[in-house]
Amino acid sequence: MKATVLVRPKEGILDPQGQAVTDSLRQLGFAITDARIGRVIDVEIDDSDRAGARATLERMCEQLLANPLIESYEIVLRENGT
Amino acid sequence: MKATVLVRPKEGILDPQGQAVTDSLRQLGFAITDARIGRVIDVEIDDSDRAGARATLERMCEQLLANPLIESYEIVLRENGT
Repeated sequence: MKATVLVRPKEGILDPQGQAVTDSLRQLGFAITDARIGRVIDVEIDDSDRAGARATLERMCEQLLANPLIESYEIVLRENGT
Repeated sequence: MKATVLVRPKEGILDPQGQAVTDSLRQLGFAITDARIGRVIDVEIDDSDRAGARATLERMCEQLLANPLIESYEIVLRENGT
């Protein structure tokens, strides 16, 4: 099953990369309020049922993909073949 | 208007970060086929209509957020207030 995990800096956590992108976009003339940057992880796992896949992905996030102290994560499951 | 931009390495482009994460997840005992890593950019822009916002975001991607040679991007517009 294919899944997408979005890992973002939590509210209130300093995001220097996002700040640099905000500044650069403004210098390029774009009218933006704020930009924040995280990671997107596309992963293909062997679980076939959705509940099991979600549980597996949550363990992956806790153990490796995200730092729960400063990052939040969002799991999006996709159907097979899409 | 809030928007999310997903920037991913194109098919066939080497993704060393994704390869490292794949290896680490396998070492942790997860049965995964493949993991690929990109960036997620949450941005708040001043355009109020969706067509204008999408056009602006496409220009941002071409000029700064993505490297069109090796990365593809996906734009997701969100309603205000969500």
